[in-house]
Amino acid sequence: MTNNTQKVKISDYLIERIQAASADHVFGVPGDFILSWMSRVEKSSLRLITTSDEQGAGFAADSYARLRGFGVVAVTYGVGGLKLANSTAQAYAEESPVLVISGAPGVKERHLHPMIHHKVKSYDSQLRVFQELTCAQATLTDPNTACSEIDRVISAIIKTNRPGYIELPRDVEGIEVDRPVQSTRTPLLDEPHTDQAALEELLADTTKLLQRAKTPVIVLGIQLVRFGLVEPIIRMAERLSIPVATTTLSKSAINEMHPNFIGVYSGRMSNKTVSDAVENSDCVMMLGVLMSDMDMGIYTAHIDPKKILHVTRERLAIGRHRFEHIQPTDFIDRLSKIEVLPKSADYFTPFSKLEKPLLGNPADKISTATLFARLGECLDESCAVIADPGDALFGSIDLPIQSSINFISSAFYASLGFAVPGAIGVSFADPSLRPIVLVGDGAFQMTGVEISVAVRYGLSPIVIVLNNDGYLTERLILEGQYNDLTPWNYSGITALLNSGYSTKITTNQQFTDELIAAKNRTESFTLLEVMLDRLDCSAALKRLGEQLNKIVKN
Amino acid sequence: MTNNTQKVKISDYLIERIQAASADHVFGVPGDFILSWMSRVEKSSLRLITTSDEQGAGFAADSYARLRGFGVVAVTYGVGGLKLANSTAQAYAEESPVLVISGAPGVKERHLHPMIHHKVKSYDSQLRVFQELTCAQATLTDPNTACSEIDRVISAIIKTNRPGYIELPRDVEGIEVDRPVQSTRTPLLDEPHTDQAALEELLADTTKLLQRAKTPVIVLGIQLVRFGLVEPIIRMAERLSIPVATTTLSKSAINEMHPNFIGVYSGRMSNKTVSDAVENSDCVMMLGVLMSDMDMGIYTAHIDPKKILHVTRERLAIGRHRFEHIQPTDFIDRLSKIEVLPKSADYFTPFSKLEKPLLGNPADKISTATLFARLGECLDESCAVIADPGDALFGSIDLPIQSSINFISSAFYASLGFAVPGAIGVSFADPSLRPIVLVGDGAFQMTGVEISVAVRYGLSPIVIVLNNDGYLTERLILEGQYNDLTPWNYSGITALLNSGYSTKITTNQQFTDELIAAKNRTESFTLLEVMLDRLDCSAALKRLGEQLNKIVKN
Repeated sequence: MTNNTQKVKISDYLIERIQAASADHVFGVPGDFILSWMSRVEKSSLRLITTSDEQGAGFAADSYARLRGFGVVAVTYGVGGLKLANSTAQAYAEESPVLVISGAPGVKERHLHPMIHHKVKSYDSQLRVFQELTCAQATLTDPNTACSEIDRVISAIIKTNRPGYIELPRDVEGIEVDRPVQSTRTPLLDEPHTDQAALEELLADTTKLLQRAKTPVIVLGIQLVRFGLVEPIIRMAERLSIPVATTTLSKSAINEMHPNFIGVYSGRMSNKTVSDAVENSDCVMMLGVLMSDMDMGIYTAHIDPKKILHVTRERLAIGRHRFEHIQPTDFIDRLSKIEVLPKSADYFTPFSKLEKPLLGNPADKISTATLFARLGECLDESCAVIADPGDALFGSIDLPIQSSINFISSAFYASLGFAVPGAIGVSFADPSLRPIVLVGDGAFQMTGVEISVAVRYGLSPIVIVLNNDGYLTERLILEGQYNDLTPWNYSGITALLNSGYSTKITTNQQFTDELIAAKNRTESFTLLEVMLDRLDCSAALKRLGEQLNKIVKN
Repeated sequence: MTNNTQKVKISDYLIERIQAASADHVFGVPGDFILSWMSRVEKSSLRLITTSDEQGAGFAADSYARLRGFGVVAVTYGVGGLKLANSTAQAYAEESPVLVISGAPGVKERHLHPMIHHKVKSYDSQLRVFQELTCAQATLTDPNTACSEIDRVISAIIKTNRPGYIELPRDVEGIEVDRPVQSTRTPLLDEPHTDQAALEELLADTTKLLQRAKTPVIVLGIQLVRFGLVEPIIRMAERLSIPVATTTLSKSAINEMHPNFIGVYSGRMSNKTVSDAVENSDCVMMLGVLMSDMDMGIYTAHIDPKKILHVTRERLAIGRHRFEHIQPTDFIDRLSKIEVLPKSADYFTPFSKLEKPLLGNPADKISTATLFARLGECLDESCAVIADPGDALFGSIDLPIQSSINFISSAFYASLGFAVPGAIGVSFADPSLRPIVLVGDGAFQMTGVEISVAVRYGLSPIVIVLNNDGYLTERLILEGQYNDLTPWNYSGITALLNSGYSTKITTNQQFTDELIAAKNRTESFTLLEVMLDRLDCSAALKRLGEQLNKIVKN
């Protein structure tokens, strides 16, 4: 190797490490402190995708990361970086591995001039904000440590499946440094490891539990998806004939036509078949499940804690007995190979055998129920559904998803406006997927114009706007004028963007026809504005509203 | 007073204190953790104004605060609060007194359930984020101290002219507590005070400087506006025949037709008359001026430091001699009464006597230069100009503003997308003003749909979109595809909102005609999409681009 090849520009090293982490795209909005790096990205084989607002770029990087295992968003300092606070918080809360790159004022200019534009309290303000929102942070003010700092942040992101933050001063990014040799990328500290004795004890207890159990059930949680350990658990469920549920956040972790799949469990929000199966079970294996209010149906879940085997990054326990010093992945690996007698398969009803929801009469006015029923009929393996929080999400709970990882939502953090830009991320993460966006009118007013990105890059998402004239979820909690919206003519978006196809839908048949037509339209986006009654909602949302109402009124 | 009247609900106390701070409106977006408080606001005489996205509410509250001395934005926890990080940073950097109110999970539910939706790392994450962005923070978890905490934060906002943060757990806001007696609102610690001997010494030195000076000049800075001390300084300038300039950030602090006004000083970005007057002066009184890169024309200001009298909250100095223990307001009060001989008035040219910019031939294609010249002709005292960063701002530098505080921009923090929602804030802060928005196409794509708020509340802002097909300022710094935008049909916004008037402008005369027609149209908004050549820009932006280009390339 010549001396020359051992040198690398810090900016190029960052590009290389992003590619090594399996991302081919960077989402962002330009601004003067990040221009030089963006210019280098455009000269590399990474592709830069720009959005209307930084918020859109952050959400796109998040959904991209959920599919690809790594997503990147790059913005300028302050006015760019701080607009990413919310999308980064979502990635943290829902364990999405997003790298946030912010340009920054040059180190030298900071000393010369105390007040450079986009600055808040001090030059460290933004870094400190991101300390609250990410798993690891680095500000590359020292060229000598820049490459190892890049490695440290990226490896933390991959290890924890959480966002990380790198700040790139504009006078540092172009500096050429020694390329780190591979060995220096080995972490100096030992990885956390598993106490074998503890693991054996937990396994023995689990085996006993499973042997005694007559009606065990597995709930696949989002962390199991992030660990990449869904498959072995499904094999185990098949071998032992155990039914499998997901949570809202992990919906689609298993092909919903799978004979062991019983539905999405979300406390009293779920359909009765799945809530009975889980709540009457004598052994509930909650694997990677975040016990959040949203995933537990706003704490309407009624499961006897004694019957729960709970496995997450943060906690391994059977009932109230907690085990320590065991890596959850080590336990899940062993659990998937556990040997007990198969259960009878007749104590549960597969989701695929449940009675299908009613499609309604073709000429009738469309309702939330028939919208979801008809959408379900049209879904196939090429579709990815991205649902915004609200009834777009709750109504989706019983929508059959035909393959894995094709349902994406902010089901715990619940940030309105994620779905439209999220669909942009999905389009680039896997071009073979057709994104179908379910979004309420309120959420569309927040970020709907990001569909503009689809026009620029020739993408063809299908956006279904549930127009029910306001913030429906909140109307059910506490009504007020604040729940009203300016009545947009959503299908008029094609006039603003000078592209796309849009129409208003009022009947059941029209919805089916337009959806089929949309799937055959690939030149630009389709927006279907579905006119719903003001208080029409899914059964799940009705139940949720009642629960939240009780809490707000207390 | 009966015992009953001494009790008050925490939520109502907050409403009272907001009104006492002179705000009549609260901007916001609803969400479940803030619904109860919003419901109480709707029952009070405060008016709640909801926007499409929290970002819009934050910007509206900022411009409202700049005009009214106090602005309020209220949102839900996490997904609402964190979307305000950027607009709050802008308010901090540019000294705008905004109160940020965030709903939060109930104190009791936090203990019962560790994972409530919208949570990031811990329940304190958002509070810690706002510690970096505000002058004072309170989370009202203790009902006993809630009222005094509200008083502490609001009084800090008013004292420092910077944003403050209050977090309102939803199970605390409705609790009834003892109303604090007036005396408990007196601060316990002494106010910072002025060392009289130091003040007399500084005044003696200033008097000497002014007596010797042949060509003194006053630069009115933004802090002088915030101190409310512009008027006495203008009276002094009149009495002593001293010319007065502003910075971009403080533009319109003085009526620009005033005989002592010479123009906006911004280093080499300013027109030559004003930069010569300031840079050749033998006594430059920089009063309340933030010496930022933007206000100093990206550090192209060439002023001999020895000749500067610099007065801000942070620093009082003559040349390099710094004075301590003097309150800037005490000094400015005395300065305004200083007795020296009046200067001859013939060493400066008033802005009102400068040659007017060319209006161009009526039938010719419109350019940035003729747009600003023609806009200047149409402005009167009823207009408020809100300019977004970029050429919308730089081109405004020489636009004559006919009264005080009628020009608003993010001239230091420079956050794109401020102007459209900012105009909403202006409309409510002073309904007698007609907001005229100057915004680039890139910035309009970020927040332009907030014009929807104008439709809902019957406001009639005039929005002038400078459509030059991309991020012009950045094109001049470093060109790349990232500077391109999806080509929107901006005037198509009326189809999306089902309201308003819009048209595309190509010639000089058309612009004048449409602007005059717009001023007579009051039923809804007007959007004028001005088609400009791709690289056409104001002289100021050309000079700025060259300066930034040098820095980026170093």
